This record gives sequence, C-alpha cells and structure tokens, in this order.
Amino acid sequence: MKTTDRALFGALFDHGESGAGDAAWLSAMLEAEAGLARALERAGLAAAGAGAAVTSAARAGGFDAAEIGTQAAATGNPVPPLVRALASRVPAFAADAVHHGATSQDIMDTAAMLLARHAADLVHASLTASADAAAALATEHVRTVMAGRTLLQQAVPVTFGLVAAGWLTALDEACRQLARVRSERLAVQLGGAAGTLSVFGQSGPEVVRLFAEELGLAAPVLPWHTNRLRVIELASAFAACCAACGKIARDVTLLAQSEVAEVREGSESGARGGSSAMPHKNNPVASVLVLGCAKRAPMLLASLVTAAEQELQRAAGAWHAEWEPLADMLRISASAAAWTAELLPGLDVDADRMRANLATAHELPMAEQLSAALSRRLGRLAAMDLVTDASREAAASGRDLTEVLLSTPRFAQPLAAAGLGAAELRAAADPESALGAAQQLVAAALFAHQAG
Amino acid sequence: MKTTDRALFGALFDHGESGAGDAAWLSAMLEAEAGLARALERAGLAAAGAGAAVTSAARAGGFDAAEIGTQAAATGNPVPPLVRALASRVPAFAADAVHHGATSQDIMDTAAMLLARHAADLVHASLTASADAAAALATEHVRTVMAGRTLLQQAVPVTFGLVAAGWLTALDEACRQLARVRSERLAVQLGGAAGTLSVFGQSGPEVVRLFAEELGLAAPVLPWHTNRLRVIELASAFAACCAACGKIARDVTLLAQSEVAEVREGSESGARGGSSAMPHKNNPVASVLVLGCAKRAPMLLASLVTAAEQELQRAAGAWHAEWEPLADMLRISASAAAWTAELLPGLDVDADRMRANLATAHELPMAEQLSAALSRRLGRLAAMDLVTDASREAAASGRDLTEVLLSTPRFAQPLAAAGLGAAELRAAADPESALGAAQQLVAAALFAHQAG
Amino acid sequence: MKTTDRALFGALFDHGESGAGDAAWLSAMLEAEAGLARALERAGLAAAGAGAAVTSAARAGGFDAAEIGTQAAATGNPVPPLVRALASRVPAFAADAVHHGATSQDIMDTAAMLLARHAADLVHASLTASADAAAALATEHVRTVMAGRTLLQQAVPVTFGLVAAGWLTALDEACRQLARVRSERLAVQLGGAAGTLSVFGQSGPEVVRLFAEELGLAAPVLPWHTNRLRVIELASAFAACCAACGKIARDVTLLAQSEVAEVREGSESGARGGSSAMPHKNNPVASVLVLGCAKRAPMLLASLVTAAEQELQRAAGAWHAEWEPLADMLRISASAAAWTAELLPGLDVDADRMRANLATAHELPMAEQLSAALSRRLGRLAAMDLVTDASREAAASGRDLTEVLLSTPRFAQPLAAAGLGAAELRAAADPESALGAAQQLVAAALFAHQAG
Amino acid sequence: MKTTDRALFGALFDHGESGAGDAAWLSAMLEAEAGLARALERAGLAAAGAGAAVTSAARAGGFDAAEIGTQAAATGNPVPPLVRALASRVPAFAADAVHHGATSQDIMDTAAMLLARHAADLVHASLTASADAAAALATEHVRTVMAGRTLLQQAVPVTFGLVAAGWLTALDEACRQLARVRSERLAVQLGGAAGTLSVFGQSGPEVVRLFAEELGLAAPVLPWHTNRLRVIELASAFAACCAACGKIARDVTLLAQSEVAEVREGSESGARGGSSAMPHKNNPVASVLVLGCAKRAPMLLASLVTAAEQELQRAAGAWHAEWEPLADMLRISASAAAWTAELLPGLDVDADRMRANLATAHELPMAEQLSAALSRRLGRLAAMDLVTDASREAAASGRDLTEVLLSTPRFAQPLAAAGLGAAELRAAADPESALGAAQQLVAAALFAHQAG
Repeated sequence: MKTTDRALFGALFDHGESGAGDAAWLSAMLEAEAGLARALERAGLAAAGAGAAVTSAARAGGFDAAEIGTQAAATGNPVPPLVRALASRVPAFAADAVHHGATSQDIMDTAAMLLARHAADLVHASLTASADAAAALATEHVRTVMAGRTLLQQAVPVTFGLVAAGWLTALDEACRQLARVRSERLAVQLGGAAGTLSVFGQSGPEVVRLFAEELGLAAPVLPWHTNRLRVIELASAFAACCAACGKIARDVTLLAQSEVAEVREGSESGARGGSSAMPHKNNPVASVLVLGCAKRAPMLLASLVTAAEQELQRAAGAWHAEWEPLADMLRISASAAAWTAELLPGLDVDADRMRANLATAHELPMAEQLSAALSRRLGRLAAMDLVTDASREAAASGRDLTEVLLSTPRFAQPLAAAGLGAAELRAAADPESALGAAQQLVAAALFAHQAG
Repeated sequence: MKTTDRALFGALFDHGESGAGDAAWLSAMLEAEAGLARALERAGLAAAGAGAAVTSAARAGGFDAAEIGTQAAATGNPVPPLVRALASRVPAFAADAVHHGATSQDIMDTAAMLLARHAADLVHASLTASADAAAALATEHVRTVMAGRTLLQQAVPVTFGLVAAGWLTALDEACRQLARVRSERLAVQLGGAAGTLSVFGQSGPEVVRLFAEELGLAAPVLPWHTNRLRVIELASAFAACCAACGKIARDVTLLAQSEVAEVREGSESGARGGSSAMPHKNNPVASVLVLGCAKRAPMLLASLVTAAEQELQRAAGAWHAEWEPLADMLRISASAAAWTAELLPGLDVDADRMRANLATAHELPMAEQLSAALSRRLGRLAAMDLVTDASREAAASGRDLTEVLLSTPRFAQPLAAAGLGAAELRAAADPESALGAAQQLVAAALFAHQAG
Repeated sequence: MKTTDRALFGALFDHGESGAGDAAWLSAMLEAEAGLARALERAGLAAAGAGAAVTSAARAGGFDAAEIGTQAAATGNPVPPLVRALASRVPAFAADAVHHGATSQDIMDTAAMLLARHAADLVHASLTASADAAAALATEHVRTVMAGRTLLQQAVPVTFGLVAAGWLTALDEACRQLARVRSERLAVQLGGAAGTLSVFGQSGPEVVRLFAEELGLAAPVLPWHTNRLRVIELASAFAACCAACGKIARDVTLLAQSEVAEVREGSESGARGGSSAMPHKNNPVASVLVLGCAKRAPMLLASLVTAAEQELQRAAGAWHAEWEPLADMLRISASAAAWTAELLPGLDVDADRMRANLATAHELPMAEQLSAALSRRLGRLAAMDLVTDASREAAASGRDLTEVLLSTPRFAQPLAAAGLGAAELRAAADPESALGAAQQLVAAALFAHQAG
Repeated sequence: MKTTDRALFGALFDHGESGAGDAAWLSAMLEAEAGLARALERAGLAAAGAGAAVTSAARAGGFDAAEIGTQAAATGNPVPPLVRALASRVPAFAADAVHHGATSQDIMDTAAMLLARHAADLVHASLTASADAAAALATEHVRTVMAGRTLLQQAVPVTFGLVAAGWLTALDEACRQLARVRSERLAVQLGGAAGTLSVFGQSGPEVVRLFAEELGLAAPVLPWHTNRLRVIELASAFAACCAACGKIARDVTLLAQSEVAEVREGSESGARGGSSAMPHKNNPVASVLVLGCAKRAPMLLASLVTAAEQELQRAAGAWHAEWEPLADMLRISASAAAWTAELLPGLDVDADRMRANLATAHELPMAEQLSAALSRRLGRLAAMDLVTDASREAAASGRDLTEVLLSTPRFAQPLAAAGLGAAELRAAADPESALGAAQQLVAAALFAHQAG
C-alpha cells in the first residue's frame, strides 16, 4: 500500500498546501541553521565562507526525516540529530559554525516562525482573493432583496449585497490582523542554552540582529523562549481568519439548503458536490470543508495559549506541546482560506428565489415598515396596534398583510379615513422601501476594502 | 529530501505507534468494506463468494493514499475514490457487493471505530504495564519517607510508596474506564444514505448485525451517524488516560529537579536525557514527552465534543472536523501511555535524598504531630500554643524544632514539669510516626490493583 | 439597583436551577463539615453529641458568603474562614470536632461532589422526561414521512419518527452514562494535610468509611486530592448530556426555519418566542437557549481535563481553576436539560408540511428506489443509467421524475417494453416505499428505552 | 444564609473587581440605551430633551436584575424586559426615544463593549504596575546570578535580573496588544432588526456615528452582529494578558519551592499564605491564584472563537453562548492582573540562596564556559574532551569541577603544560564570567519598557 502520511485527507484539510509537514519543518530548521552560520560569519565568529558552506549543505537536500525523527527520541526534539547530519555534510573549516551558540529551541522556534510566515502569505493571498470576490458579489447584488433571518426565522428584508459586504468586512479585518502580526511579531529566537547568548560574550545582540537580517524576521528585544505571546498572537490571527471563513461557509450552507436554494456552489467548483445516484443533490462541498477546517481552530488556539505557561528557562512539555498544534493551525487555516477562495468567485446567486422566499412571508417582514408609514397619519400607537392586529390576521389566514388591511373593514375604514389607499400601502409594503441604509453600508464596506 | 509526513515528530508524539495515520485509515476503511461484503453475502444480498472476493481484494494492498486523497476533494471524503479503486479490483460477480447499501459515513465511522479499538488495546497494554510498575514502586517504597508538598511547599511527611500508589490508582481507573468503553461503546455504523438502511428493505437490521459480527464490533440500537455520544465517551476515556499519565509525569519532573533530586529517569532510558556538553544534566525526556502529549488531550476532546452538534442526517462540517482530531487523540494517547510505560519501570528513587530533603525543614513538618503528642499531657490548647511558639522560633533560627523545645527555658520548663523528656519529643518528631494511614492506603491500592 | 449576581442570565443559563451558586457551595461545604463531625463521633474521635451539635450549627444558617469570601483571599480558598465561623457557632465541647483532621481541599472536593450529585439528579430527571417526550414523538410519527437531509440537502426520505428515535437513543445513552458516573464515581475526599490521614493514626480509613456513609457518597480506595479522574468522568458525562440536548436543539432550529416550517416550538412554551412587532416570528427560544448552554460544555470540560495535571500533594492553581468551571458545567447542563424537557413535549410537528417539502424535490429523492425497482426488469446497469438520465432531466425541467419517465419517449419506450407502467412507477416513487428499516429502527429504540 | 452569588469566590477570581457581574451588565445596557436616545435626539429622530430624560431614568437606578432576568426567558435575552422597565420610567414625550430602531443584540453587544473597555482599563493599569515592578526587580538584580533551569534541570547561569526582564517584556507586549485592541476594536453595534438600520431610513449611518460619539466607542464600517472578529481579538488580547501573568506565577511558584527558596511572596502580602499549624509554610497564595485564573483563559477564548460561526443575521445560540464566557474572561483577566500587581512589588528575592543553589551543581553549569576558555590554549576538540571527561568525574564524585581538573593528574598535567593555572581555571568557572549578554538584554528590556 503506497501511503504518505496526511495525504489521505490532505486535499481536504491541507487544501492550501500550507507546507507545514515534515519536509517544510526540515527545510525551515535547515534554513535557520544556515542563517545562523551566515550571521556568525558576518559577526566574525565563524570562518570566512562558513556561512555559504553551511547554507549550501543545508539546501542540498538528502536529509532523512524518518531517520532524524527516530533519533529525536533521545533528546526529545529533532534538532540534535539534524545538527549532526548537517555538520557531517559541511567541510571541516565550517563545521564549527554549525549550530554554534544555539540551543535546540532556538532552531525549532525560528523554524516555526518561518513556517508561519509562509502560511501567513498563503492565507493572506487566499483571503484577499476571497475579499475581492465578496466585493464583486456585494457590488452586483447591492439591490438584490432577500429575507433577513434572525434565529433562522425570516425577520425583515436585507439585500444579498449587504450579506456579501458583511463577509467582505470580516475578511478584510482578518487580513489586516494577519498582516500586522506577520510584519510585527514574527521574530527569530536565539538565546543559547538559557537565554543569555552566553557563548557569544558581548557579541550576542549583534549576532541576533544579523541572524534576523539573514532570515528576514524581526530581532526581538529579548529571547522569547519562555515568553510565548508571539505564538498566541499569531495563532489568534489565524483563528480569526478561520472564523471569517467559517461564518461565510455557515451562511452558504444555510442559503444553499434545498428548501432555501438562494445560492449554490457554482460552476467553478463544477466537479464537486454532484452525485450520480442523486442528481438533485448539489452538495456544498467547499463550504462543508471550510467548516470542517474552521471548527478546529478554536481548540488549536486554546492548545497554544494553554502551552504559554512555561517553566523558567525552558518548559518541560508545554513547549513540545506547541509544535503539532501550531503546524495544524497553519494547515487548516490555509485550507479554510483556499476553499473560501474557490467558493466565493463561483457562487451562484438566485435573486428570483430570494425574492420568492421573502414573498412567502406574506409581507409580514414589512409590518414594522408599514407601521412606520401609517404612524405619520394615524399616530404611532394607533398605527402599531392596527398593524399588529392585521399581522396576526395575516399570519393566521395566510393572506398578504396589505390584502388583509385593505379587505378587512375594521382595518380598511380607519385607513380610508386617513386617506391611505392601496397604492400607498403597497408602496410601504414593498421590501425595497424597507432596506434602510443597506446600500450605504455596502458602499462603505466597498470603500473600506478598496482603501485597504 | 526523504520525507514521510509525521515521521519527524513520530518518535515523540506517536511513540506508541498507534497506527492512526494514512495506512491505518486505509486499512480500516477497506476492512469495513470487506466486512460489509461478507455480511451482505451472509444475508443473501450478494453473490456466493463475493465476501471472500472483496476481502481478498481489500487486503491485497496496492491502494494509493495520495491518489485517493486527491480525488477526495470532489466529494469531501475519501470513500468514493476508495470504493472505485476497490470495485475495480474485484471480479465482476462480486462488484455489486462493494459498498452496497452503504454511504461514505458508514465506512468512515466504522473505520474510526476499528482504529480506536486498536489504539485502545495499545493504550490499555501500556497502562497496565505502567500500573504494574507503579505497584512495584509502591510496594518497594511503602516505608520510604519523604516530604509531602502542597502548593509546592513542604507540608507534612508522606511516603514515596503512597505517591506511587496514587499514580497506580489513577492508572487503574483510567484502564477500567477505557476497557468499559472499548467493550460497550465501539459499534459499527451502517445506515445508508440517511440512516434508514433503505436499500436493504426489511433486511437492514440483519445486515447490521452480521456486519458487526464480521468486524467484532457491537451492533448499535440505531445508526449513530449524527448521534456522536460514542465518540465523546471514547475520547473522554482516552483523555482520562492522558490525564493519569500527565499527573505522573508532572510529579516526576518536579521530583527530578536539580534541587530536589529525589527521582531520576533511570537506567532503562539510559540513552536519553544526557548531554555531552552538560554531563550534570539528566533531562527527564520521557516525562517531558508524556506532558508534551497529554497537554493536548483536553483540546482534542473539546474539538470532538464540539463536533457533536450535527445537523439532521449528516453534518455539514462537524463530522469532517472529527477525523483528524480523533486520530490525533489516539496517537497522543498511545504515545503518552508508551512513554509512561518506559518511564516507570526504570525510575531511580533516591530514598536518602528524600529523607534529607525532609530534614531541611527542621522538623517543622512534624509540628502538628508534636502538638498532638504533647496535648495528652498539657491539654490541647496549651500544647498547640507551645508548639506554635517554638515552631516560629525554629523557623526563624534555623534550628530543629525539638532542639528549640529542649533548649529554650520557656518551652523546656513546662515540658519537664509534665514529664516529657528528650526521648519522647524525638520520638514524636520522627517523621515515621506522622505517616497516619499511609501504609494501609498503599495496601488498599495494591489490593484494588490486583483485584482488577 | 437591586442586583444579585447571575440573576440577570439565570433564567437562561441556569434554567434548571442547578444550585451551583454561592448558597449551594456554602451548604455543601457545611454539610461536609457536619458529616465529618458525625463520622468522628462514630469513630470515637469526637465527644458524644459533637456530631449532632456541629450538624445543627451547620444547618442553622446565618453564614455570610460575602464575609467568608472576602477572607478567602488570605489562604486562597473559603474553607478556613468558614471553619472559623462554624467553630464559633458550636458549643465548646464540640469545637474540637470541627474540621478535625481535615484540610481545606477535603471539604471543597467533598462539597463539589455533593453539588454534582444534586445536579446529576436534576439533569437525569430532565433527560428522562425529555426521552419520554421523544419516545412519544417517535411513536406518534412512526409513519410521518419527511425528507432526510444530508449536508443540509434533501437526500432520501426518512420519517420524523426515526428522527425522534435518534434523539431518544442519544438521551438514553446520556442518561445511562450519567447514572453510572453518579453511582460509581461520586466519592468523599478525606486525606488531611497531605493525603495520609495523619491525624487519625490507624483509624483514618475507618473515618473515611463513616464520612462516606454519612454523606451517602462512595469511599475511595485512596484520597484523590491530586488524582482528578473522577472530575473528568463526571464532567464528561455532563458534556455528553449537553451534546445530546444540543443535537436536538440544532435539528429543531433547522426544521423550524421559515422556509422549512416542519416543526415549531409549541403551545407549552406559548409565552415565548413571539414578537409584537413581528407576529410572523415564532422564535425557537428554548432550542436557542439549549444551544446557548450546550455550546459551552466542551470548553468547560477541556478546562477541567487540563486542570488534572496537578502537582504532588496539592496543586498550585490547577485545583483552584476547577471550582468555577465545574459549577458552570453543572449549571449549564441542568439548564440545557431543563430547556430540552420544556421543548420536546410541546413540539408542534407539521406532517403535511414535511410531505410537501419532500414533494418539492420532484421525486428525485426516490431515484435510488426507482432504480432498484427497475433493475429487476431491466438489469442493474441499464436501470441505473436510465434513471440517472431521467433524473437530470427532471432536475433541469422541474418536473416530477415519474412524469419525465412516462412522457419522454427515450425513457417511456424501454419501460413499456419491459412491462413497467405508470402504476408501478408511481408505487416505486412513493416515499413510503423507500423507508427501509425506519419502522423497525423506531421500534428498537422504543424497546431499548423501555427496557432502560 | 446571606448569599450574593459569586461573592464566595469573588476575592479569588474577581480580585480585580472587574465589574462584569449583573450590576455592571445592567448599567452598561442602560448606558447603551441612554446613548442611543441622545444620538436619536441629536439626529433629529427624537424629541428635544428626550436624550437627557432617558439618560436620567437610566442612571436613576431601581432596576431589578432578578425581575428582568426572570422575564428574559420569554425572549431569550434580558433586553426586552429592561426596555419595558426603562420606558415606564421616562416621561411620555421621551418614551418613543427608548430603544427606537434598535434590536436586543444592538444593546447587548454595545454593553459588552462597554464592559470590555472598563475591564481593559483595569487590566492595563494592573499590568502597567506589574511591569514597573518587574522593571525594578530587573534593575536591582541585574547582577544577581542564579541557575538557569531548562526542563527543570540546572543548565547554565543566568541572572534574576534577566528573568525579571523576561517577565517585563511579556507584560509590556500584553499591554501593548490590549491597548491597541481597546483603541481600535471596541465599537458600538447598531443595526436594527437585521442589520440594515431600516427604521432610520437614510439617517442610519449618522445615528451610528452619533451613538458611537456618545459612548466614546468607535463607529464600525458595518454592523457586526454576526461578524464576531472584534470579540475574538478582544478575547485574544485578554488571554495574552493572562498568559503573561501565568508565566510569572509559574516561575514564582517554582522558585518559591521549599527546596529552591530563591523567592517568596513577601511583606506586601503579609497576611497571606501563613498557617498557624504549619509556621514553616509560606504558601505563594497570590501566584497560585494568578494560575487559578490564568489557566481558564484559553478555554474561555476557545468558547468565544467557536461562537463566531454565527448564522445569517442573528445566531441561534452561538451569540447567547458568548455572554457569560466573555464576562468570565474579563473577570479572570482582571483578577490575574490584580494578583500579579500585588505579587511583584512585594516579591522577596534571596540572592544568596540563588548563588548557593547554583553552587550545589559543583561548577558543572560552567563546563561550557571552561571548555571555551581552555580551547584557546588546547584547541577546541581537546578542550571539550578534557572538560567532558572531568565533568563526568565531578558529577560522579560530587567534587567541584575545577578541583577535579586541578587535582587529577590526567587533567592537571596537560593544563599545566599549557600554562593554565588554578587562578585562570577558577576565573573561567566563575558564573559571572558565563552570563553572556544578560546585562545588555536587561538594559534593552528596560529601555523598551521606558520607551513604551
């Protein structure tokens, strides 16, 4: 049986190809070691050419994750066997530059930041594409009336443009938070055995600065080996990205229900969701998988926040408990984002069905609006009483509210007396007259999106 | 670069070789399909020989997880491509028996139960071995006095036997819960498209019964596709196993601290924890990795419990969100249990250091005991006042409590008057006289362990 | 402003009146102290009458939670000030019996078990009532056909009886687990300062036995001060109860949607969910609040499982981190159960709407069934091809599947040739013919419910 | 029994007096209603004076949380009964201004932001005070040498100043994140029934702007009723504050252990932690309670992130599931911060004990340093071999490393040959020579703290 672990579910939960698996970890750890060697050389702490030699060996490949993994049990992390493997591949003159002054955690933590940067870029790109698609939907459907639903009950009219604008705003917010964390909080970790940079004497901070420069990460004020706030902020930002995607997917699955049928996952995702046995089914596969990813984010985040209670100069377990949850967070975030970026551009929107669904409520969602219209002539309380009474009648009889108002003497009489005729009532019962600021809000969301 | 995903951390977090990766999932899904075909044949719903034919094809190997995984994106789960691959490998006469009457969830859920059974057996074996080792420690150290520590402060004496008995009792409890869930709650899932077993007509329940028989799992009262209480109970039992291991590991890391040094991870784990550069270090690697695994269990459990809010006849995302967390729960539970089973038999216990550490508290942990002894002659209140006063003196001066009592006139006088001499005081200040029921409790724990 | 904390949301999230607030904690701690005094007297370790005297003082009331709470900051828990308050209220001869040989944790943990027992009884009663109501729905609607929905898409027919039977089975399972934990795992905690029962000499185990007897709890093999598996099992059982309720509430909110309208929260809950401004709304308030409670259970469970990593003889923080989450777990579980017990008996089920919704799918959910019927005459592959083709046509044109089959020459011809007429097709397309074992399954669930 | 709920544990888990209980919720909801009325008046949508009239009634008190809470069950939230109570207290001319155009969620969400702002201010103040105290410790102990401990084993020397600087940096980071979220992400929520601001016609955005101005919160681009990213960011920031405090408390409990005794909770917290029966105990009560609070934060955060999957225009349960966890997050964050602010200024640091503990390791933590010193004369490999060999000898014999080197011929000879004498060796084995950049790092952390 040909099996590569995590391939079986990879197209579902690593749809964004996050690069948070073994190969990526290995590469990132090697990149960290190489960056350190180059920094050491620049700081005058390693032989000329050592940086390039280590970098070349690190990038040449041939490292065996399984072998290194097996040896990791002896010390509790894979860095020592990796260092041995790397050292054995560099020329003698450069051997002293390998891992010089570093501790395993320096390499693991720095590698984690490199993985996070890569995933953040993927997620940012997917969310940006998703936001653009949401903006297009908001623009196109700025006047598409549909039922607003609260507690899953039809309430008052909204527009699909406003729904899409809501998605857009959340995506934009998630992007912004992620971009900020990416630019401000991704930093190298370098502290040596207990965070004093002891091996480097007075040159420690300079080595850190050069190390950061080599890797394109920030240099932290202090080594952060047991200050895990960076990890928390990072994970929080990814969790927020998942939440933005999850909300969209939740809405799509609800609007795509057989009985609602206002949207469906569309042509772009044509190969998906069908069923030869059940051709009437159009399973919202992308949305389902967004949810399948996003639902896990809160608990991965909790794992990482819990792990922040780290003892003294290196945690006995809490640090180790971070590695897989962090990688999983990157993986499912990139996947949720990638699925969302496939979902939104191809979303089929059925504006007729939206209007038809709203119409099944017999104008009751416009009761508030009608009441407001009548109050100008009848006074607020009288208008409210009348409309409430008529609404009950409409709900009970299954007739439209305006029809009840016009055809029931106890309603029709006062309305006629106040000079309110059918045309006026029907205008007030038109959902489009009840949309409040929906259009302005869509415009504001689009403006904010374009303004970045 | 040779990489197989999850190998890099496998020796750490899959130390128990749980078999919860791609290969195991594939095997279990194929086993479920094979069991179904055999059940169908026995129920007269498939051709004679079809069961064996499908079983043979399912076990022959050659399925490509990566290929199946890629195709899984079309439907949101890997069963349809697996079924296609399997069907293409069986002789024509048996093709109709493949997946007949089943839906993807039937196969995924049943496979998950098979994986869980395998992991439960591994964990049970590791915990049983661990419990035996804890029992041996409890027996050997039934009289080994040490400081009891509350809020990490020395309080009153306990024995290391009692500490080990506490570990033992928790391991026994975790085993018992796991065994119960394994025997009562692992069941096949078979319901067809929406849980009615529609394709089988009236034979549905019989097919379920035979399917269960073929796989050695229970037949449930109802298909449980959206009743996830089994998954919750299962995950809770594994989480309890992790908690039992985590408590032990927490204690070991604390007792192994350089300044405490009462235990160390021992000869069995000789290759671990050393450091050529720092030969004084004896890192408690096994304990650290137990903690690195066990700390993740609560959040994996929460993921699975959260996922139980499943919609109608098949959940849109919550079901999908179970697969990886469940597999991870099996993986880290088996790993925590395996590390514990390595840790306990080789634990080095330093009884002298235990007694020495206790002695640094200048007999103050025996103040309660002394007070009780004196109260027989002096009355309770007078005894308490006298001992409290002397204790403050001892704490301030760094002298032993009995020495303070005997050498300070304001304490010595009333004691002498009451006929309490040095021998009597020293006897009362002997930690061994302050152990209460420790020995009985150890015996009770050992008895309960042997009684199973 | 008159405010009693947690009253504002109490009718929502403490609907079951769990008694897990301050008053209940105080009572339970006092009950534990009283039980200990009676046990001490019976064991000959306290004066005759001391047990009754302490019990009388403990039950007389007059303890000030706010005052005790304020003093709790000095030691980190409220037991010391409570003990002082209690001791000051008992006659001198009994004062020595108060808290004798106990540590604060003994009282807190035992009190927590008493609270848990009370809440377990409440939850069990609510779930039993809910299960009875679900059984009644399953019985009444054993033939009520409705659309089965997978991934929120109509799939094949089911019955509402089967849906209710699914709820029933989960409620029964949750009840069973809760009853088991209640009877097997609720135990007193008594260990003294560090778990050796040191003050009682050899009588410790006997005092524990009597203490347990007095309180009607189990006597544990060992003091469990830092073995928290009981807490985990207890919390897991409550979480499972919440999950069973949450699944029901999720289904009800979905089936009650304006566009589905197959159920609504009914007459029993008449005062709820209405809106004078929006008379068409019938908010499923009970279901929403079940979800509002149940969604929190997984994280409360995770908090309690995380807290099980407790240091040595008393945890520095992890124990303290249990108190409020445990009380909250009891509170929201009792609330979710109480809301479910209100929801189910009054649920209005609209069987006509169920059938009508199913009919909107133009018989496509019966395609599988039709295919099976035709295959007897046409052969399996030919039947499947024909039905699939016709299904696409039906889906595209919005006509019923049998109509398409009968009126489209390329389908009608082979059917006629095979002697398959309109009557036969319509019979095969009748949802009632596609219900498989639904009725048997309902019967099995009812039987299991009655058998307990 | 006099009981006010949550008073019993209030001094422990609401030590910061966060104001997140019933009274605070009521006040905040009333403040939101009052702000809305003032905004409506300013927008010309309410009578002149209505804003002041509603504000006056809202602030007059007399609202009964228990009564309002009881009525909340009818609609699932306490706003409708509160609005009725408020409306009944305002003069007739202003009654129309009460809650005009708002929905319950608008008030709840806006009130939650007001509570969060208050708690953020409390937490920020406590953390700032804590950071100042940490800065003072870092300054005072910049040269206080102690053992660095990794995996709870002595590793190489650090300074207590650097440890305190690590706490400081985390506190500063947590403050910064909290301040950012407070200033950027706290916004009013106002959308009306389904987020269109329908009742206000074209004036909606202006009303929102004025509402925000009245309450001193931001005006959001869109109503955020089902976009919960603000809640996530807020909760993440509080969780990070808890993590920063929890790390400190973890370190203090470890350093305060009887066998380590390098710090103790000090004079400021004099009344705490003592035990008349056990005068040798000095329980680190403040640290324990920081941990008792901080350990809950990750799961409260997960609850809130999970709740972000909200349906369409108002969530059926997920929104309701936010209220208590959010309030609890504010409560325990303020409590953890307040305990930390008490803990740090009074921390007693025993520099002598720190040096003495380090000395127990027989200079082995300086092996790396010695090796580096010798390598200048002996070459790197020879130096390393020699020191490693001698270290093993020292560890086995319990003698100091320099003594072993000087008194063992096979080590002494090559050293003498290389001209390395006792003075040189002792200098190299001086912990102060092995502190690397510790001092520079402390300076950098202090500088960053002062720079804000």
